[in-house]
Amino acid sequence: MTAPWAERMAMARALALGESVLGTTSPNPPVGAVVLAADGTPVGEGATAPPGGPHAEAAALAEAGDRARGGTAVVTLEPCAHTGRTGPCTDALLAAGIARVVVAVPEPTALAGGGAQRLRDAGVEVEIGMEGPAAEAGALASWLTAVREQRPYVVWKAAATLDGRVAAADGSSRWITGDAAREAVHRLRATCDAVVVGSGTALTDDPQLTVRRPDGSTADRRPLRVVVDRRGRLPATARVHDDAAPTLVSAAPTPAGLLAELYDRDVRRLLLEGGPTLAAAFLREELVDEVVLHLAPKLLGAGAPLVGDLGIGAISAALSLTVVDVARVGADVEMRLRPALRGDRSDRDERI
Amino acid sequence: MTAPWAERMAMARALALGESVLGTTSPNPPVGAVVLAADGTPVGEGATAPPGGPHAEAAALAEAGDRARGGTAVVTLEPCAHTGRTGPCTDALLAAGIARVVVAVPEPTALAGGGAQRLRDAGVEVEIGMEGPAAEAGALASWLTAVREQRPYVVWKAAATLDGRVAAADGSSRWITGDAAREAVHRLRATCDAVVVGSGTALTDDPQLTVRRPDGSTADRRPLRVVVDRRGRLPATARVHDDAAPTLVSAAPTPAGLLAELYDRDVRRLLLEGGPTLAAAFLREELVDEVVLHLAPKLLGAGAPLVGDLGIGAISAALSLTVVDVARVGADVEMRLRPALRGDRSDRDERI
Ligand SMILES: NC(=O)c1ccc[n+]([C@@H]2O[C@H](COP(=O)([O-])OP(=O)(O)OC[C@H]3O[C@@H](n4cnc5c(N)ncnc54)[C@H](OP(=O)(O)O)[C@@H]3O)[C@@H](O)[C@H]2O)c1
Ligand SMILES: NC(=O)c1ccc[n+]([C@@H]2O[C@H](COP(=O)([O-])OP(=O)(O)OC[C@H]3O[C@@H](n4cnc5c(N)ncnc54)[C@H](OP(=O)(O)O)[C@@H]3O)[C@@H](O)[C@H]2O)c1
Repeated sequence: MTAPWAERMAMARALALGESVLGTTSPNPPVGAVVLAADGTPVGEGATAPPGGPHAEAAALAEAGDRARGGTAVVTLEPCAHTGRTGPCTDALLAAGIARVVVAVPEPTALAGGGAQRLRDAGVEVEIGMEGPAAEAGALASWLTAVREQRPYVVWKAAATLDGRVAAADGSSRWITGDAAREAVHRLRATCDAVVVGSGTALTDDPQLTVRRPDGSTADRRPLRVVVDRRGRLPATARVHDDAAPTLVSAAPTPAGLLAELYDRDVRRLLLEGGPTLAAAFLREELVDEVVLHLAPKLLGAGAPLVGDLGIGAISAALSLTVVDVARVGADVEMRLRPALRGDRSDRDERI
Repeated sequence: MTAPWAERMAMARALALGESVLGTTSPNPPVGAVVLAADGTPVGEGATAPPGGPHAEAAALAEAGDRARGGTAVVTLEPCAHTGRTGPCTDALLAAGIARVVVAVPEPTALAGGGAQRLRDAGVEVEIGMEGPAAEAGALASWLTAVREQRPYVVWKAAATLDGRVAAADGSSRWITGDAAREAVHRLRATCDAVVVGSGTALTDDPQLTVRRPDGSTADRRPLRVVVDRRGRLPATARVHDDAAPTLVSAAPTPAGLLAELYDRDVRRLLLEGGPTLAAAFLREELVDEVVLHLAPKLLGAGAPLVGDLGIGAISAALSLTVVDVARVGADVEMRLRPALRGDRSDRDERI
C-alpha cells in the first residue's frame, strides 16, 4: 500500500525533475515522473529528454524495470495517448503493469489528450490534480500558456536604473547592473528556447546573445538568437552571426507575426531582451506574460527609457502589473511581475 | 550589582524610546534614557520632550526618584554638560546620586560636549559605545548628520512607475501608488521637521503637505510646509496656505541656501518630496542623505521622469546608491537607499 505522503513526496520530486529540464524539451513539455513500487518505495525517476528522446514516464519506467509492476506512477502532466516521435506513454505504463497513476495537471491539447481515460479503461486507478497549482506555476507554466494560446510564452527582461533608464544619454549601457544580475540573465536565457532583440539593440550594443558561464565560456544550452529587423539594417559582421548558436533574422511585421513564426519553429518559451521600442510593441499587443526587471541603484537623469511610447496619456490608463517576487541580486534588485490581468496574486503588505 | 544583560536590555529600551519621539524634538536630539536602581531593576525611563521640556535623563530620573541613588543611567547619547533651555543633564545625574552611566553615542558638538569627563571627574563610572552602531543608525542618525554638517538631514521621497515616471503625459499623478504606500508617506512626514516641494509641484498638484491619518483627519504632528518658489509664482489660494500647519515660501537660490535657512529655523530632518527639478538640484549638490522610493508596478511609457537632468552623459558616471532595504507595501515596492559614498553596507546576494 502506498501511503498518501509517499505520493506527495514523489510529486515534489517530479516537479523538481521537470524544473531541471526547463528550456531543453520544446516543443515537448518539461515533465517529471517518479515510479513507486507496490509498497511505496521509489524505484525510478525521469524527466523529458530533448525532442526525439524518451518522455519522463518512459525514463522512470526504464529505471524501475520489473519493480514497477503493481506500483504507482507520479507524473506532473497527464500521460499522452498519442504516438509522436515516441510511442504513447499510456501504453508504456500499461505494459509495465502500473496499477495507479497520480497526475498534477491534465493534458491541455486534444491531440495528446485522453490519456487518463485510456488508463482508466484498462483498469488503472487515475488521480488528477495533486499539487496542480504548484505544477501550473512551475516548469509547465510557459508550455501550458504556449499550447493554450498557440504562441510562445514571452518573458520580457530588462535592466534599468531607478529612474527607468536602460542606457545613458551617450547610448552607453554597459553595465547598468552588476555581475550577479548579469549572471542571473544568463541562467534565465538557459531556460528559454529563443532570445529576441530589435534591430536597434543589435545595432547599438552588438550583443552576442549566447548563454555564458560566469567564467565567460559558452554554455551547452544554445537558444535560438533572434533579431527582428524589418528594414534589413543588421550587418553581416554582427556578433549574432558567429557560430556560437543558431540565429534567425526575422522581418516579421508585428510581434504576433514574429511569435507565429517562432511557434512554428518549436519555440515555446521566449526571452524578449528589448529594447524599449520592441518591448513597447509587445506590451501594446498584450503579448508579455512575465517581466523580469533588474533595477540598479543608480540615477542617470537622462537616456533611453525602459519602454517606448505605449499610447498612454493619463495615470488611470497606466499598464498595470502585479509584483510576483522581489529579491536582492548582488547590489541590484530583481523584480518579477505579471501583467495584472493575468496575475492571480492579491495585494500583500508584508516585509520581504 | 547590575548585570551586563540588564544594561543591554535597558539600552534596547532606550533606543526604542528615542525612536518614539523622532520628529518632535528638533533642534534637540531624540534621546532615550532608562534608570536602573543599584540592584539593576529598571526604575525610570524617559525620552526627549519637545523643545523647552525636559531631556530624556531628567524625565527618567524624575520617575526613578530616590531609587536612582547608587544606580545606573543608560542613555543613547552622552549627557550634555551645558545649560540651554534646561540645565545640564550631568548636574541632574550627579544630584540624583547616579554611580554609573552607560552611553551609546558620544556627543558630537563641542558646545554640549564634555559630559562624560565631567561625570568621571565627579567619580561616576562612564562607559561609552554600548550599541553604538545601532544608535547611530537609529533615531539619532538624522540629528547626528545635521549637527556634523550644520544643515538638515535630507530624505528624498518619490513615487514612480517601473519606467521611472512620476506623472503621466497629461500631468496626472494621482495616484501612482496605492493606499498602503501613501499611508507610509504620512508616517514618514510625521518623523520630519519640514516637508519641501518645488514651485512646479505646488502649482501642478496643489498638495496640502500635512500629516494625515488613514481616515483623512489631520494628525497632531505639523511639520513645517516649505515651497521653494524663487519667481513668486505660488498663488495665495494654494492649499499650503491653509491653517492646518505652518508654511514657509522660500526664495532661497540654491538647495544649500534653503538648507541653511531651514537649519536656522531648527529643522534637523527634512523630507524632500520633489518634484524632479528640485530633486535633481539637491542630487547635483550631493545634499540627499537617504532615498525612499515607492515603485508602483505600472508602466506609462511617457510622462515626467523621476529626476531631472543631472548632467550625466555616460553610464560610468551614473549617480550610485546603495540599497538599504526593500519591502512590499501593499501592491507597491518600497526601496530605501543611500548615496553610495555615504553607504556603509557591502553588496549582498540574499533572498528577501
Ligand atoms: N538595459 C536593457 O535591458 C536594454 C535592453 C535592450 C536594449 N537596451 C538599449 O536600448 C537602446 C536601443 O533601443 P531601441 O528601441 O532602438 O531598440 P529595439 O527595440 O531593440 O529596436 C527597435 C527596432 O526594432 C525594430 N522592430 C522590429 N519589429 C518591430 C515591431 N514589431 N515594432 C517596433 N519595432 C520593431 C524596428 O526597426 P525596423 O523597423 O527596421 O525593423 C525598431 O527600430 C540601446 O541604447 C540599448 O543599449 C537596453
Ligand atoms: N510622484 C512623485 O513622487 C512626485 C512628487 C513631486 C512632483 N511630482 C510631479 O512632478 C511634476 C512637477 O515637476 P517639477 O520638476 O516642475 O517640480 P518641482 O521640482 O517641484 O518644481 C520645480 C521648480 O522648483 C523651483 N525651484 C526652487 N528652487 C530650485 C532650485 N534650487 N533648483 C531648481 N528649481 C528650483 C523652480 O522654480 P523657480 O525658479 O520659480 O523657483 C522650478 O521650476 C508634477 O507633474 C508632479 O505631479 C511627482
